[in-house]
Amino acid sequence: MAGNQGFEALTVETLPARLGALPALRTRIGAGSSHWKVREVGDGNLNLVFVVESETGTVIVKQALPYVRLVGDSWPLPLKRSFFEYNALRRQAARDPGMVPEVLHFDETQALIVMEFLTPHVILRQALIAGRQLPKIARDLGLFLARTLFRGSDLAMVAKDRKADLALFADNVELCDITENLVFSDPYFAAKMNRHTTPQLDGIVAELRTDRDLKVAAQQMKHLFVAKAETLLHGDFHSGSVMVTIEETRVIDPEFAVYGPFAFDVGMLLANFWMSYFSQGGHEDAGSRAGMRAYLLGVIDETWATFAAEFAALWRTERKGILYQASLFEDQGDALGAEQALDALLTDIWVEALGFAGVEIHRRILGLAHNADFETITDTDLRARCETKALKLGRHLAVNRRAIHSIAEVNALAERLEREIVR
Amino acid sequence: MAGNQGFEALTVETLPARLGALPALRTRIGAGSSHWKVREVGDGNLNLVFVVESETGTVIVKQALPYVRLVGDSWPLPLKRSFFEYNALRRQAARDPGMVPEVLHFDETQALIVMEFLTPHVILRQALIAGRQLPKIARDLGLFLARTLFRGSDLAMVAKDRKADLALFADNVELCDITENLVFSDPYFAAKMNRHTTPQLDGIVAELRTDRDLKVAAQQMKHLFVAKAETLLHGDFHSGSVMVTIEETRVIDPEFAVYGPFAFDVGMLLANFWMSYFSQGGHEDAGSRAGMRAYLLGVIDETWATFAAEFAALWRTERKGILYQASLFEDQGDALGAEQALDALLTDIWVEALGFAGVEIHRRILGLAHNADFETITDTDLRARCETKALKLGRHLAVNRRAIHSIAEVNALAERLEREIVR
Repeated sequence: MAGNQGFEALTVETLPARLGALPALRTRIGAGSSHWKVREVGDGNLNLVFVVESETGTVIVKQALPYVRLVGDSWPLPLKRSFFEYNALRRQAARDPGMVPEVLHFDETQALIVMEFLTPHVILRQALIAGRQLPKIARDLGLFLARTLFRGSDLAMVAKDRKADLALFADNVELCDITENLVFSDPYFAAKMNRHTTPQLDGIVAELRTDRDLKVAAQQMKHLFVAKAETLLHGDFHSGSVMVTIEETRVIDPEFAVYGPFAFDVGMLLANFWMSYFSQGGHEDAGSRAGMRAYLLGVIDETWATFAAEFAALWRTERKGILYQASLFEDQGDALGAEQALDALLTDIWVEALGFAGVEIHRRILGLAHNADFETITDTDLRARCETKALKLGRHLAVNRRAIHSIAEVNALAERLEREIVR
Repeated sequence: MAGNQGFEALTVETLPARLGALPALRTRIGAGSSHWKVREVGDGNLNLVFVVESETGTVIVKQALPYVRLVGDSWPLPLKRSFFEYNALRRQAARDPGMVPEVLHFDETQALIVMEFLTPHVILRQALIAGRQLPKIARDLGLFLARTLFRGSDLAMVAKDRKADLALFADNVELCDITENLVFSDPYFAAKMNRHTTPQLDGIVAELRTDRDLKVAAQQMKHLFVAKAETLLHGDFHSGSVMVTIEETRVIDPEFAVYGPFAFDVGMLLANFWMSYFSQGGHEDAGSRAGMRAYLLGVIDETWATFAAEFAALWRTERKGILYQASLFEDQGDALGAEQALDALLTDIWVEALGFAGVEIHRRILGLAHNADFETITDTDLRARCETKALKLGRHLAVNRRAIHSIAEVNALAERLEREIVR
């Protein structure tokens, strides 16, 4: 793991000279680095992101900084997150080819990854705020979830390799710590960095923070996140980590990668779609978003259905790991035994995904890191009404996760909340 | 981690010359190594164990071999298990002082641990076979379980240290592999190394190996063992890993140490007590073991009760880790919220412990590594009757674990099985 020895942050000015000799760049955008056009486009909270362009091509250079960019050097964050992002990208590329940007170069000391420039892709979250209906995201993301999660687990991997990967990513401590605190705990008490739409949400926030069942549920989800090391997660799988065109879906930014429960990425993504659903009412200046709301509920339904179907297909064809071995089922003429085990596992993933979805919704409204979906609603009364509906759905999911049986049930509740505030 | 470079197995003859200069030994048993009396006493399956004695003292030297001693060099097994045993002993000594042998010296290259010689302690399993009632084991082992399991988890540890330990022990791959195969899978199909009392058990063995619910349950327990990295386990916590006098209880041999579920060690120990219970009927040559049976059911009851009570006490006093933080409960005047979470966690541990107990019983009768409790019953008809009762209890525990509410229920079923074969 790199420390900060020898690290130097790139700038628009220094980048061509510092990276001009790299074969990976010269091949892609040409040797004349003095003619490269460089702009910094990082809009995330953590890193520098440069677009480097020449007449022959364009690449992305992403460089970690030794602190949280959003906050400054009072919040140090290790450069090694770049190492984990690089390693996660490689594994994801192998597990669902074509779904992550191609990596052209990795420099551990400089904590930088040179990768394919995606164009004309935009961030999915921005597209959904703009009211765009992307026809392929549900299928692409459902498949990506099933393939990366199944293939990174003891259902598919050689046990020794899986354990080595577990150990490798266990060192991604500081980014895990962000998830552990900001997602699962801070939203449920008056933690220093929290904020919410005030004063409109003060009442419901107070209510949620004294809601014993909710706090216990959130901590149970944290316990699962921390202890249930089933597979390599993306770790930050929301609509801001997805880039889209009408034709293509790509997943970016897996620097939070760590071993965790199958359900974590699934639940986080579903949560972000439900939040998009509730935020639509704040973006109706140019007309009703009724069609967009119907589209989003369909996306949620199709994402889960695709995930479950693909996970089941992989179970039947690629289950070569140490869990639920064919030697105990299919090889003994008992394929139904394997189906019984699959049903039970998918039920667990389902229940846990709802739990993770609930807390993800809460932390985006009550915690430090908010969503543009709601944040871009400038009328705070309107925003608070949207957020309130989402908070209520989140509470329902987290607390009642074991009693909910289908996406249709959750979507019906979302529609009811959208029509009326259900207390 | 050491490979085998420089490793040389000790012998009774070479030990004094090779270890004579070690300060740890000279302090304990004196410098005159030529007068040391050395005997090899290893009766386990894996290692060399020497007793080294002088006029002033006695120590144990335990050395790993690069293969499974029971099988020979056709089954290689890495020396690094000694490293994991040493590291587990250190942690257990800190977490429940006085319960493991004192380590005097560790040599990673030679894969050897010099430790305190326990005398007049005997192996608990042998004592139970002999019909001895040890008054302290339930309390001592219940406390040891609670203290080591609680204090090795994210309930108590600094998250960063817990993750580093997870990574460290994740390399104990080969011993995990033994557990994964021999405990959870091999017993449930005709794996090559399996054996059972034949022909008497052939019928029930065939029945269990076509029992779909049982096979699914066993694989679900394997899934939990592999994926739920809650705490540092002993990993092989049966009555052969406990040494006793009337006054003292000590836990030895944690070379299978790995991060796993709270319930694993608990379930394995309970299983070995239930097996001892069913084996008593095979040891009645010198008189009825009715008193011994009653004693064992009491031990089981007290072990669980002690574990649960101590776990709860630690929850209330030492819960300083990242899970179920006081900032969300006690600090908000909601101590009952923490109690609610504790109840739910203990319920999970209970259910999982029953599942692990069920498969542990099965593997000791159907798999490779059998128990002396049953094996020393030379009348194979009698042995098979004892084993049959245990197999039936094991099946009940594994499959119905979620529907069982108390030790009293299980003990009542055990008594019923002991009186009559319940089909």
